Amino acid sequence: MSKQRVAIAGATGYAGEELIRWLLKHPSVQLTYLAASAKWERPIPLADVAPRFARRVDLPIESLDPARLLSVCDCVFLALPHGEAMALAPKLLAAGKRVIDLSGDFRLRDAAVYPRWYARPHASPELLADRRVVYGLTEFHRAQLPEAKLVANPGCYATSILLACLPLFDAGVVEGESFIVDAKSGLSGAGRKAQTQLLFAEMTENLRAYKVNEHQHLPEILQEITHVTARAAAMVFVPQVIPVHRGLISMCYLRTKADRSALERVYAQRYAAARTPFVRVRAAGFPELKDVADTNYCDIGFAYDAATSTLMVASALDNLVKGAAGQAIQNFNLMYGLPETTGLL
Amino acid sequence: MSKQRVAIAGATGYAGEELIRWLLKHPSVQLTYLAASAKWERPIPLADVAPRFARRVDLPIESLDPARLLSVCDCVFLALPHGEAMALAPKLLAAGKRVIDLSGDFRLRDAAVYPRWYARPHASPELLADRRVVYGLTEFHRAQLPEAKLVANPGCYATSILLACLPLFDAGVVEGESFIVDAKSGLSGAGRKAQTQLLFAEMTENLRAYKVNEHQHLPEILQEITHVTARAAAMVFVPQVIPVHRGLISMCYLRTKADRSALERVYAQRYAAARTPFVRVRAAGFPELKDVADTNYCDIGFAYDAATSTLMVASALDNLVKGAAGQAIQNFNLMYGLPETTGLL
Amino acid sequence: MSKQRVAIAGATGYAGEELIRWLLKHPSVQLTYLAASAKWERPIPLADVAPRFARRVDLPIESLDPARLLSVCDCVFLALPHGEAMALAPKLLAAGKRVIDLSGDFRLRDAAVYPRWYARPHASPELLADRRVVYGLTEFHRAQLPEAKLVANPGCYATSILLACLPLFDAGVVEGESFIVDAKSGLSGAGRKAQTQLLFAEMTENLRAYKVNEHQHLPEILQEITHVTARAAAMVFVPQVIPVHRGLISMCYLRTKADRSALERVYAQRYAAARTPFVRVRAAGFPELKDVADTNYCDIGFAYDAATSTLMVASALDNLVKGAAGQAIQNFNLMYGLPETTGLL
Amino acid sequence: MSKQRVAIAGATGYAGEELIRWLLKHPSVQLTYLAASAKWERPIPLADVAPRFARRVDLPIESLDPARLLSVCDCVFLALPHGEAMALAPKLLAAGKRVIDLSGDFRLRDAAVYPRWYARPHASPELLADRRVVYGLTEFHRAQLPEAKLVANPGCYATSILLACLPLFDAGVVEGESFIVDAKSGLSGAGRKAQTQLLFAEMTENLRAYKVNEHQHLPEILQEITHVTARAAAMVFVPQVIPVHRGLISMCYLRTKADRSALERVYAQRYAAARTPFVRVRAAGFPELKDVADTNYCDIGFAYDAATSTLMVASALDNLVKGAAGQAIQNFNLMYGLPETTGLL
Repeated sequence: MSKQRVAIAGATGYAGEELIRWLLKHPSVQLTYLAASAKWERPIPLADVAPRFARRVDLPIESLDPARLLSVCDCVFLALPHGEAMALAPKLLAAGKRVIDLSGDFRLRDAAVYPRWYARPHASPELLADRRVVYGLTEFHRAQLPEAKLVANPGCYATSILLACLPLFDAGVVEGESFIVDAKSGLSGAGRKAQTQLLFAEMTENLRAYKVNEHQHLPEILQEITHVTARAAAMVFVPQVIPVHRGLISMCYLRTKADRSALERVYAQRYAAARTPFVRVRAAGFPELKDVADTNYCDIGFAYDAATSTLMVASALDNLVKGAAGQAIQNFNLMYGLPETTGLL
Repeated sequence: MSKQRVAIAGATGYAGEELIRWLLKHPSVQLTYLAASAKWERPIPLADVAPRFARRVDLPIESLDPARLLSVCDCVFLALPHGEAMALAPKLLAAGKRVIDLSGDFRLRDAAVYPRWYARPHASPELLADRRVVYGLTEFHRAQLPEAKLVANPGCYATSILLACLPLFDAGVVEGESFIVDAKSGLSGAGRKAQTQLLFAEMTENLRAYKVNEHQHLPEILQEITHVTARAAAMVFVPQVIPVHRGLISMCYLRTKADRSALERVYAQRYAAARTPFVRVRAAGFPELKDVADTNYCDIGFAYDAATSTLMVASALDNLVKGAAGQAIQNFNLMYGLPETTGLL
Repeated sequence: MSKQRVAIAGATGYAGEELIRWLLKHPSVQLTYLAASAKWERPIPLADVAPRFARRVDLPIESLDPARLLSVCDCVFLALPHGEAMALAPKLLAAGKRVIDLSGDFRLRDAAVYPRWYARPHASPELLADRRVVYGLTEFHRAQLPEAKLVANPGCYATSILLACLPLFDAGVVEGESFIVDAKSGLSGAGRKAQTQLLFAEMTENLRAYKVNEHQHLPEILQEITHVTARAAAMVFVPQVIPVHRGLISMCYLRTKADRSALERVYAQRYAAARTPFVRVRAAGFPELKDVADTNYCDIGFAYDAATSTLMVASALDNLVKGAAGQAIQNFNLMYGLPETTGLL
Repeated sequence: MSKQRVAIAGATGYAGEELIRWLLKHPSVQLTYLAASAKWERPIPLADVAPRFARRVDLPIESLDPARLLSVCDCVFLALPHGEAMALAPKLLAAGKRVIDLSGDFRLRDAAVYPRWYARPHASPELLADRRVVYGLTEFHRAQLPEAKLVANPGCYATSILLACLPLFDAGVVEGESFIVDAKSGLSGAGRKAQTQLLFAEMTENLRAYKVNEHQHLPEILQEITHVTARAAAMVFVPQVIPVHRGLISMCYLRTKADRSALERVYAQRYAAARTPFVRVRAAGFPELKDVADTNYCDIGFAYDAATSTLMVASALDNLVKGAAGQAIQNFNLMYGLPETTGLL
């Protein structure tokens, strides 16, 4: 297959840089445009802002110019702040480009829900209902990706939690009306923002809970569960930042009567290695962050406490890879008929 | 009051060093003996093994010699590995010494429970039933401390979890038959052990769950809850190490119908500032590790989710201070009739 | 002695918070005013911006009001950004207050040198020549402190480097026309500034050299050396930030013909324990950061390589204590005739 | 080209794991044997000891069996402790295998020097004099690699320091009789050893100098400089560990009269991008660790201080990649006539 001409908008954020790293190695991709929101007079060498790319990337970085973007690519990865993607995407789609959006702008099906979580009205509600706008949790929406024109790449927490819990809801083994997720994320998840609370001196030797039950990944998680169970779901969600750069682990607590071997069967059916190359379910024990760092894997491990009918499932991934750039490329591969693992091993 | 002559057995571990740091500043303490399990031919300067104490401590460190220990002190802090304290304590008590034990040896009332969690039979079961052997969760056993001859200083996880949850059980507001605790601890909690899995290179940028539902602090937590509720309790307990040196935070999930203001009253009654100087309940939000680092405070913050009847309580403390050396000194103060905060502010 | 009424201007920066921590414990200090540059409508509880001080500090934090400052204190610690102290100090001195300034505004004797390093003209050049304005490197200017009206507290790098090197220059054992300092500092040294390059995600697993031969502590170091040797000195200075919160270590490379025992005598004469309680010279080996963390000590260790006539001296301190708040209090003690170690052990 | 059958002896250490990571992606390599010193009854899945390799590596890990090693590979990477390689290598060579040794056993030409630094006599001194035993600093011994039967892969510090300094010595611009190197390394450089001083709790928030002027990489550095200058060299060498996992930066201080533009020419001649793909010399400023993390690049940046005739050169690399596994593969490529960058971009 000839290479696709690929652009990255938002190339200087953590997810944008990670996209560059992985797309550089992708055999079916030719990077043609790297853009950021910063205002430069003219394109500058990427290595001037990111020395790690010296000699590795010939392409300069430039201020985002939608007209130029339209002229140089077939496919665009949007790694922009929430709110910017929904303004830009319609133009790209109208010009026949395919879009993979890493923001939250197109993850919610119901435009009425968006303002509550993103503090603004949705600018393109008609797209949310479009069948070719796909929620890109690859393992669960694989069939729709070949026809997708816009993929809403899931949030990092959402990916982690849904991969752990959706098979259980789908199998009907979850009891009770709610479940609990205690999640821990590295600081890159907060983005490259100059905020005091993200300083090294604030976060080393620290742990901080934030947006408890208010995190914007909550509604996309409940939406996907409801999609599978056809009834309302409720989740108690405690996201926390810990002093690591990359990595995210969600410990999910669910009530079930299914025992360990039943649970193993649920996961085995859903995550056969041949069909879902990037989800690894452990035979015993819980995953550690370092097991998945710098990979596109999501590692799942669980324990069952019969005395309290409680299942503890831990789901670990690299928030910048399976939680962002890697899953975006996984979706790209399926959109373009490539083997799912292309450029990701 | 004249100073008490105080010995520390196990002075080179993390808890032992922390005891030295704080006892140095204590106005009613004269350190008279520092001992460790290591074998030295003769006493050596403490600064040879812990340069931070150069000029601050005149006393040498020496190999633990029970006979010498008996001769030079009135009160002994035992910061030895589990199993060593129960062999040594009877001799100390027989000689009229008062003992504060930081190991798990005397925390469980029922000697039959001990082997399951500590992998050995208990050597002094008669002491466990002694009224003057007190579980040293200061805020809940304050009245017994003046008469105590041996204080079993609680585990760091136990202190954190019990301070968050006991008031709720005591007030009868907890529903359901079990609750969940997702706890995160710094690596000093594992002690100064030369183990591969504790290496910097293994734990930086990492998080690891361990001893899930198998941690030895579990039975002392359930024992104290049962003591208050007079019925069996069950807890799902997931301890995790995160890449910090000191600090521990437990996120506890309990079912309750009590709303925020009712919960505020429960905590306010139990933790009035005048009576419990070291427990701080936040009016809003959750504590961070850095709020309690290097202090004897336990900070509690909570949120209530009415939709799922779930209470999330976070309890943060410094595992080496309120979780070990600090609470031990707090207990010492009450044993000797001193103001509770002496040497701890 | 009655307590001094003490104010801190700049109480929300890292040095300001550290001043609060230590002054709280100081037996001769009554904190009467905590102010910051932030604009609040009215004083707010300190714990609202720094929860670690809940219950420990009754005083609120308020927006800096010079008039109020003048009315409530005898002595002011200024922990403000460079440039603000020199505007405020004259008013304080005119009102008879004594001032300890932690910025760089009053460290250089020669007002003509100031603009080159601080990018602005000096606003109070007459003060720089005042005999009662003292460079507060305590160990070398102790005699002037009782009469001082304004103490210019040295920079953290300057304290570390001068304590290591001044005795050598004073003893006349340094050869060659220049020396080299390779220094490593924790991120708190950069202050609580919302800058991208100080983010946790940028600095974990990183090391960065900055302001090489351009750091503003350079001229105060050379000034003090010249003061002792009466001739020009030259230093190659490479400051670097490493992923730690607090701590600074300077490795100084000097040429000398003096051998180890001669060097030991030089240091022993200058830093007798009885006279200089906060400088500890090691008999062998080099200090580690953890040896001095959270103390006012400066630890010095050295090795001599006869083959190349090179002396390697490492000088470690806590940049927030001996490098800032601690030395400021040490100076305060001498200004007010108190034992040098008051409140610092 | 057909794939080479490759074995790794010492596959569970940090360098061994890094070899697996990179060799997995190498198009001309077939991993055929993974062995470690640990004693297992039978081969076990690699993922049992290194879960990160689940699904990525089919090969098991087994106890090192020299007979089996001989039978299954063409080329062996030895990542064993010092002393073990020199016992094993002669057998491998005798069987016609080619060997890339990551230990220090074959780096020194003069067997008489070995015992001073490695505390044992050399077991195969005849190999040290063999022309086909090559010191694998790729950029300086490229011509010898195609014929090499054993490559002694340089130490991580040696690689960093030599890449920075050898061009200067070769160009004859270094003055004086000695130079100084202040080097900072991540903890993975110390290997996966269960030592107290390498614990997370000891090294977070810490920095430690060690083996000052005694590090075993010193003689190989001086050997290579002498090889170029034909006269004795002297170096003051201060290695330090900082709290990072991977990454090494050497700040080298040399005396020279050459100015910046002359120095730029020296580096430009030696490190033209077309010929030396993995050395990047910066036009300005100093490299940071994060610029080279997880890459095979060595980044060099320098500043010249004319006032003191001092050149400061910083050389950054990932100690596990260009300082170990990556350079080993770079050497492998040249041994087998492959493009130098194969599998390394």
